Amino acid sequence: MTRSQLYDEMCKKASALCIGLDPDGSKLPASIKNNPQGILDFCKEIIDATHDVCVAYKPNLAFFESLGPEGWTILEDLVNHIPSHLFTIADAKRGDIGNTSKMYAKAFFEHLNFDAVTVAPYMGEDSVTPFLEFNDKWVILLGLTSNKGSNDFQRLKMEDGSLLYETVLKASSKWGNPENMMYVVGATHGEEIGHVRALLPDHFFLVPGVGAQGGDAKTVISHGANDLGGLLINASRSILYASDKEDFALKAREEAIRLNAEMSSLF
Amino acid sequence: MTRSQLYDEMCKKASALCIGLDPDGSKLPASIKNNPQGILDFCKEIIDATHDVCVAYKPNLAFFESLGPEGWTILEDLVNHIPSHLFTIADAKRGDIGNTSKMYAKAFFEHLNFDAVTVAPYMGEDSVTPFLEFNDKWVILLGLTSNKGSNDFQRLKMEDGSLLYETVLKASSKWGNPENMMYVVGATHGEEIGHVRALLPDHFFLVPGVGAQGGDAKTVISHGANDLGGLLINASRSILYASDKEDFALKAREEAIRLNAEMSSLF
Repeated sequence: MTRSQLYDEMCKKASALCIGLDPDGSKLPASIKNNPQGILDFCKEIIDATHDVCVAYKPNLAFFESLGPEGWTILEDLVNHIPSHLFTIADAKRGDIGNTSKMYAKAFFEHLNFDAVTVAPYMGEDSVTPFLEFNDKWVILLGLTSNKGSNDFQRLKMEDGSLLYETVLKASSKWGNPENMMYVVGATHGEEIGHVRALLPDHFFLVPGVGAQGGDAKTVISHGANDLGGLLINASRSILYASDKEDFALKAREEAIRLNAEMSSLF
Repeated sequence: MTRSQLYDEMCKKASALCIGLDPDGSKLPASIKNNPQGILDFCKEIIDATHDVCVAYKPNLAFFESLGPEGWTILEDLVNHIPSHLFTIADAKRGDIGNTSKMYAKAFFEHLNFDAVTVAPYMGEDSVTPFLEFNDKWVILLGLTSNKGSNDFQRLKMEDGSLLYETVLKASSKWGNPENMMYVVGATHGEEIGHVRALLPDHFFLVPGVGAQGGDAKTVISHGANDLGGLLINASRSILYASDKEDFALKAREEAIRLNAEMSSLF
């Protein structure tokens, strides 16, 4: 999917919402069986109830891998269930030496046909570029993450006075362009997203941390938007587990609509 | 597996050799079919021919994931085929926010029963500690990797004059201990491994980059060994593809024995 196709879909729906699919067996509604088929059914019901009020889905690979080989089988079914005009992100945080990253790219872009994959920057340029060799596919590189641990290294000061994450953003933005790279910038950093936007005026940011992690969509938009939207705002747990009863899909939809209303200033 | 169990096995075999299982369908011997079953058979033959002349196996997840869901199925078969007294490493380079890392840990330690998993440090402490909560299981954290891209961020200078990878090593060594953490330190950095050893006298290092990537086992040992061995030296392509004919398993064994001879000064 291209950047303008994504933005068209956002405008049509007045939504920048990405729904994170992190299906935790221990949190499923009582009506859903805690097994791979139950988890697949749960995710499909969430998608059926929300695909017209969001623009992207982000399955989190860990939650599928924790089910063993069956997890990958249901992941494949799940991706095929998402309507093709929605943007799909494999939240996999991969990255390895060149010949290995090429294999990961093949797994996510060819085999599972995701539009994007999240990638960790620590191993540098040659660990990222193999993902950039696919037409209309995206790398979403970790910039400033939403967790407490983002303070441990990402915010450390470098010799030239910049922070590590700023150095990562600046260097990596030359490896691709705003048509094939986005960045993870956590909502939990509040107004700092405006600083990141100043560094990278054109790139899309995938913003996790709204909802269960405490980030606020309005702050994200007022500091992070650009002329082409520039933001995919992710919520996972607050949508998936909006209700633990049989009405979970309806409540998930209501929470998605509520979040879209919070994002209305973007459109 | 505990550190002393690993070292006992190393002494018994006079080997620090870890064999990386990166089965690339395009490089298989002509006698092996390029499909998941063929790849599984190939890896099993390599294991049958080498398990008495190495101490660890390191399946590289990307090569299995590139096969789609069947890749995870054969990976499970493969791990079960490795004799239990050998150390098994999921080379997966995972790492995410706490509740997600916990799921990855479950996938690799509970479901697939690996002894260790490689983890990327960029997201900080809370992305790593969930892996440390399993008895006799190991995190192998990326320190200084073997690829060219290790220069992009890992070797950048911090405000206090240390390099980023040194900062990562020092900070992260407090999250666990030498009984549950190892570090990836690439063989391609030559004598610099002595510098890393001075920083971390007790931890084991997993050393990739010997063989196809150009690193040298003798240099690694003379600068990186400690009293408990302290090194797992990985070779992948030079062993797996030692021959492209039907004698591939025999040639793989010969290459493993040749590498052990290079490592004899460690014992």
